[in-house]
Amino acid sequence: MTTNPLRDPRDRRLPRIAGPCSLILFGVTGDLAKKKLIPAVYDLANRGLLPPGFALVGFARQDFGKQAFSKMIKQAAKDGARTAWSETVWKQLAAGIRFVPGEFDDDDAWERLGKTMKELDEQQGTGGNHAFYLSIPPGLFPVVVSQIKKHGLAESSQGWRRVVIEKPFGHDLASAQELNQIVADVFPSQSVFRIDHYLGKETVQNILAFRFANGMFEPIWNNHYVDHVQITMAEDIGIGSRAGYYDGIGAARDVIQNHLLQLMALIAMEEPVSFNAKSLRIEKQKILANARPPARIDLHTAHAQYEGGWAGGEKVLGYHEEAGIPKGSTTETYAAMRIDISTRRWAGVPFYLRTGKRLGRRVTELAVVFKRAPHQPFSKHDVEELGQNALVMRIQPDEGVTLRFGAKVPGTTMEIRDVNMDFAYGGAFVESSPEAYERLILDVLLGDPPLFPHREEVELAWEILDPVIQHWSKQKSVDTYPSGTWGPVSADKMLERDGRAWRRP
Amino acid sequence: MTTNPLRDPRDRRLPRIAGPCSLILFGVTGDLAKKKLIPAVYDLANRGLLPPGFALVGFARQDFGKQAFSKMIKQAAKDGARTAWSETVWKQLAAGIRFVPGEFDDDDAWERLGKTMKELDEQQGTGGNHAFYLSIPPGLFPVVVSQIKKHGLAESSQGWRRVVIEKPFGHDLASAQELNQIVADVFPSQSVFRIDHYLGKETVQNILAFRFANGMFEPIWNNHYVDHVQITMAEDIGIGSRAGYYDGIGAARDVIQNHLLQLMALIAMEEPVSFNAKSLRIEKQKILANARPPARIDLHTAHAQYEGGWAGGEKVLGYHEEAGIPKGSTTETYAAMRIDISTRRWAGVPFYLRTGKRLGRRVTELAVVFKRAPHQPFSKHDVEELGQNALVMRIQPDEGVTLRFGAKVPGTTMEIRDVNMDFAYGGAFVESSPEAYERLILDVLLGDPPLFPHREEVELAWEILDPVIQHWSKQKSVDTYPSGTWGPVSADKMLERDGRAWRRP
Repeated sequence: MTTNPLRDPRDRRLPRIAGPCSLILFGVTGDLAKKKLIPAVYDLANRGLLPPGFALVGFARQDFGKQAFSKMIKQAAKDGARTAWSETVWKQLAAGIRFVPGEFDDDDAWERLGKTMKELDEQQGTGGNHAFYLSIPPGLFPVVVSQIKKHGLAESSQGWRRVVIEKPFGHDLASAQELNQIVADVFPSQSVFRIDHYLGKETVQNILAFRFANGMFEPIWNNHYVDHVQITMAEDIGIGSRAGYYDGIGAARDVIQNHLLQLMALIAMEEPVSFNAKSLRIEKQKILANARPPARIDLHTAHAQYEGGWAGGEKVLGYHEEAGIPKGSTTETYAAMRIDISTRRWAGVPFYLRTGKRLGRRVTELAVVFKRAPHQPFSKHDVEELGQNALVMRIQPDEGVTLRFGAKVPGTTMEIRDVNMDFAYGGAFVESSPEAYERLILDVLLGDPPLFPHREEVELAWEILDPVIQHWSKQKSVDTYPSGTWGPVSADKMLERDGRAWRRP
Repeated sequence: MTTNPLRDPRDRRLPRIAGPCSLILFGVTGDLAKKKLIPAVYDLANRGLLPPGFALVGFARQDFGKQAFSKMIKQAAKDGARTAWSETVWKQLAAGIRFVPGEFDDDDAWERLGKTMKELDEQQGTGGNHAFYLSIPPGLFPVVVSQIKKHGLAESSQGWRRVVIEKPFGHDLASAQELNQIVADVFPSQSVFRIDHYLGKETVQNILAFRFANGMFEPIWNNHYVDHVQITMAEDIGIGSRAGYYDGIGAARDVIQNHLLQLMALIAMEEPVSFNAKSLRIEKQKILANARPPARIDLHTAHAQYEGGWAGGEKVLGYHEEAGIPKGSTTETYAAMRIDISTRRWAGVPFYLRTGKRLGRRVTELAVVFKRAPHQPFSKHDVEELGQNALVMRIQPDEGVTLRFGAKVPGTTMEIRDVNMDFAYGGAFVESSPEAYERLILDVLLGDPPLFPHREEVELAWEILDPVIQHWSKQKSVDTYPSGTWGPVSADKMLERDGRAWRRP
């Protein structure tokens, strides 16, 4: 093991450094690989967290020469790296880069891949350890997984084999079960890593630190004191060139099914026995199993499509004017729903989830909104500008925690107004936050599964969503909202009926 | 009533503007009058909170001409005013300024004062309403109060008469009772206003807003969740030219008896029925009556004098080298003590109070330190840099609220470190904070007593302090601490014995 120059010598913990292995990327020419995965691999190497015996294998239809492939990887790493560029690090990494051209249904190509893996084991010392990263459309999962099996690449007398799957994990409960079964036929459960990149975010992992390391929040983290919870993931952009992926999927499947329900589980779950994968999964599953879809889907959900207009000073297209959207598409670009969690801790506390494109700004946050004090010995006038206390975990982009509370307005007798107490990650830590994919790829290579949703969690999430999506699919027309606003009127009404209002993040 | 240009027209509350009256200042040439009281009167006038029929009367030994007195007042107002200078406001104010020369035991002078008050009632329209502000050494209270009585100035067939007393309210319980009795013989209890200027501070009043307007703090504000409370008033300066006042009084009488015990009462008290004087007093008295002096005074208190040396880059004198300190003086410039409050809410939660001169920096704060989480599902290494949660109310100079809690260190698996969430008054409100004396003088003129300690509170505070001071007075020598540090080793040991440590504010 080489000395890692970036490691703080005061740190007495053993560093988490991957052992010898290869990462085999399917979809290496895709957007995700170029923008996130390759830069994350470079950053891991630069942080000294990859071993000398590491290899990166690309498998793609397009035929690169070895030189051209390496050049493409280098450019992607340079463009997307979070850490400083080092030619020395790159040269070490480049020595383990391989490319295998071929179609997914071309048996010869798979034989070439198998041969490459063997060569790496011998030349690069990857020791039979290989992770298959499926950064490809879900329609291609069955063929790739069955080819892996057919060519005997899923098993090895030496080392480990793992598979990494990107969302969407199916289209509904039935398709998710089918997909999970296909994978389960080839890989044992502990070798399957489903990526929900939100779980790799520092701010999401901090939810657990915040809740369980501190003494002062957990006592009020229940239905005695919490009025409701709002979980928001808002994007300011539209679908861009992703019509082919997005249409027919929509906001609920794309975001609520995975990211928002996972965030809900983390904010709501009981203290786990430990932070290992099994203990975490048990607690998250308890929440997801007790989370009920809205009883009255018509009243407690909202969905809509963005209209064209002006957003952020630019003229923008409506969903139906975007390239590639079929006429009459009812795919929602905004989705909101109320979820009730039937547990002793949360009964009576609604969780409001919402996500959308072309909203007011890009922001992901969890807001725990507290009940008002049961009695306030103030005059009515003095507290008329006082709202409810709220603890807001800002997941992105302005990472941190905000506490909203009432304070006395200076110069008045006892007038009280809401103010914010703020913690910003950027200001508090010299350590800059690794990208979610750095953490998750390292976890895959280390075989460390706590941050990956388990099969059952995925299926429980679909159980929550299925009735909602079915209800929506019966409607002939879909609501709209102006680009750059905070969603449709129906979403505001949905909260108004409960005597509440959405936060303006 | 004239329109107040500084009033926010959106504010629907009735403004608190004093009615016609005069403020009669004894000790008008003293430091407090020049630096605080006169500027506060000007600021009140400038904010439109004094009526046209307002008068300011100075009574002093030194014989000014009318012109010279007015000039002195103007200079003090200009030098100390918080708000912008306005000649128009000054001219209005100047029309009601009077000066009465004389000794306190000179009956002729008191007759002149009575005549001046009558003239003001007729010429300036003060309507028989007069407040006597005793900004004089406590030794002079008896003569002034008896003269007020003798010359019939404490009563009137028309209007009100009030008296304002500055600390120290006695020297121990017996002298406080005596002093209170002297005043009570002349003024009814509701006409006596004891100034504890800390209670006029916005940040101190905010303690009540913070505790009782919000829903999320009160549930953890008790011995289930609070480990201990630290109340600190630290000064970086020495006694300067105040040896005559300070020596023989010391830190405990000067600061703990009034400011710190009042802060303790506000942080610890139950919700009052309302914020009127009587309801507040009832709750504060319950705390003071249940607050026990330390059982083992030797173990649970500390006191010391500062040594000479270097502080803030300057060479400074030790207490015994300061001008006017008698040889062998054992007056403490640092005092710390543990107080236990025997109530259902606070039993088992020590309140540590400390104050001192020549400490590390000037700061007053209340820190509520919470217990650790009863269980933390983290590895020992991950939480070794995690302290206890704390909510810190910063009274001065950097007014605000800080919450210390544990957050995940970016890039680690689950290492947790203390970080701060912060709220700053300056950043949150466009309204700048009035000086404590503005609020308190206005309250006197309006006859609004909630922010003034009642006689019984003062005596209860002495009951807490008396045994401690008696114990200290029996010691032959007194401990010392280097200037610019955070007090004597004995104070650190006092907390160490309880398994705790003082905060470094």
